[in-house]
Amino acid sequence: MSNILTSTSPPEFLTRLYSALPPSDGRRPRVTLTFAQSLDSKIAGQGGQQLILSGKESMIMTHWMRTMHDAIMVGIGTALNDNPQLNRNNAHNNPYHLPRPIILDTNLRLKTDCKLVQNFKNGFGRRPWVICAAPSSSDDADFASKTKLLTDVGVRVIQIPTETGHQIDIRAMLQTLSELGVRSLMVEGGASVIKSFFTGVSNPSGNFVDAVIVTVAPVFVGQQGIGYDLDLQIVRRSIASTLFQLSCLQSSGLQHVHSEILGKDAVLVLKSHGSYI
Amino acid sequence: MSNILTSTSPPEFLTRLYSALPPSDGRRPRVTLTFAQSLDSKIAGQGGQQLILSGKESMIMTHWMRTMHDAIMVGIGTALNDNPQLNRNNAHNNPYHLPRPIILDTNLRLKTDCKLVQNFKNGFGRRPWVICAAPSSSDDADFASKTKLLTDVGVRVIQIPTETGHQIDIRAMLQTLSELGVRSLMVEGGASVIKSFFTGVSNPSGNFVDAVIVTVAPVFVGQQGIGYDLDLQIVRRSIASTLFQLSCLQSSGLQHVHSEILGKDAVLVLKSHGSYI
Repeated sequence: MSNILTSTSPPEFLTRLYSALPPSDGRRPRVTLTFAQSLDSKIAGQGGQQLILSGKESMIMTHWMRTMHDAIMVGIGTALNDNPQLNRNNAHNNPYHLPRPIILDTNLRLKTDCKLVQNFKNGFGRRPWVICAAPSSSDDADFASKTKLLTDVGVRVIQIPTETGHQIDIRAMLQTLSELGVRSLMVEGGASVIKSFFTGVSNPSGNFVDAVIVTVAPVFVGQQGIGYDLDLQIVRRSIASTLFQLSCLQSSGLQHVHSEILGKDAVLVLKSHGSYI
Repeated sequence: MSNILTSTSPPEFLTRLYSALPPSDGRRPRVTLTFAQSLDSKIAGQGGQQLILSGKESMIMTHWMRTMHDAIMVGIGTALNDNPQLNRNNAHNNPYHLPRPIILDTNLRLKTDCKLVQNFKNGFGRRPWVICAAPSSSDDADFASKTKLLTDVGVRVIQIPTETGHQIDIRAMLQTLSELGVRSLMVEGGASVIKSFFTGVSNPSGNFVDAVIVTVAPVFVGQQGIGYDLDLQIVRRSIASTLFQLSCLQSSGLQHVHSEILGKDAVLVLKSHGSYI
């Protein structure tokens, strides 16, 4: 059993990982993708409903990890379903860094009474940032009124250009965050945000991920849960032999760094070697 | 790092697990479902192609687990794609039990020159058993000739009644194996065999699984790999609240027993509490 429950500093493997990763080069923050999943790689229940998969030891690891990043990002689905606080644990009067919450919210659907807003108002959290798509001219008025509602409760709304399909351009968003002083970003989910960040992982010029930390809980959720089936280039290639397939797996852009049991959960740590950082 | 590489007896957690599970009651063998998967819960590559996901430490665990079972079962897809030996490791002149290989092969597609047959002929393995569906009268002749080919090379062919959809009736198959003296069965895959055994796991009267041992390798395969998306009753229910969903997860018929890191891989052990055993 790990001593993470009583530790007053981050787990050693996290400290080691972040010492080994080069810092941001100013074009984008250092990005860690992290999530808890079931054995059958589901991260939420039916319809995106929140599942508390990790045990308390892994939760504490997540809180420590938050203190090691400038900002924490979730998608709007997660923000609406879970109403998260994205805070650090305040046990032991934790003196560590309080990260900024950022919501990836293409169409400005965040509720003005969510916990992130309330925490900021009450002095328990930093001002939330919302990343939205730059509106087309036809929905300018609607967009302006939504922006005003959020701005009035203290949220900073940041518009980013979109790619085809009205998806936010991840590269442009990271560039903007970098210009706003975010040097390290922890991306916590949900499934579509994970997929967006993963898309380029095996392609050095399109890779936005430096580390992936997955907590696997010893449960099965079943096919009605929400998974994150990944579109990886490695398996898209025509594969002639088992040997070639193995070498693809090994060169998939992610390299194993550490494995650890925390309570009942397994924590698996990978770093990107296709990263430009 | 575990000492499994040099150990001359099975890992302690396996010995403990099997001492705690009651023995077979004569209606079916004690069943362990075990497989290696990627983080995104894929167990094979594109088109079912073999992926060597586990490291050597987990492979050795699998070999030890085989010595703790009377028989090892794989589906015909795995038998054709991987041409496995389903043997124990022969390091240290291993004196432990040599398990019987059993192939779940509804339509008798096993190759007569596969390694399982060759090993038996050469005295390195036990006689393979093939479980097939009882033929309909229209394909009697074809079935008789396939049976003869396999029988001639030493395979024992066992016919089992089918359910709707020409799938072998798992309950009837297990009853037959029990009558033939198999008290413990290790089911190694592939995806459709895993799904068949999992179907009843949250239903005590239809559950055929006593333990599930999953090795998670720290890699992602991507959506073109073969997964095992499970049809679990727990998430099929209409779920009113997060709390209810959590209690469903906890009562999903499988209970966490042990987690361990072996090399780079995480090994997660669950036992069934809905089992009639």
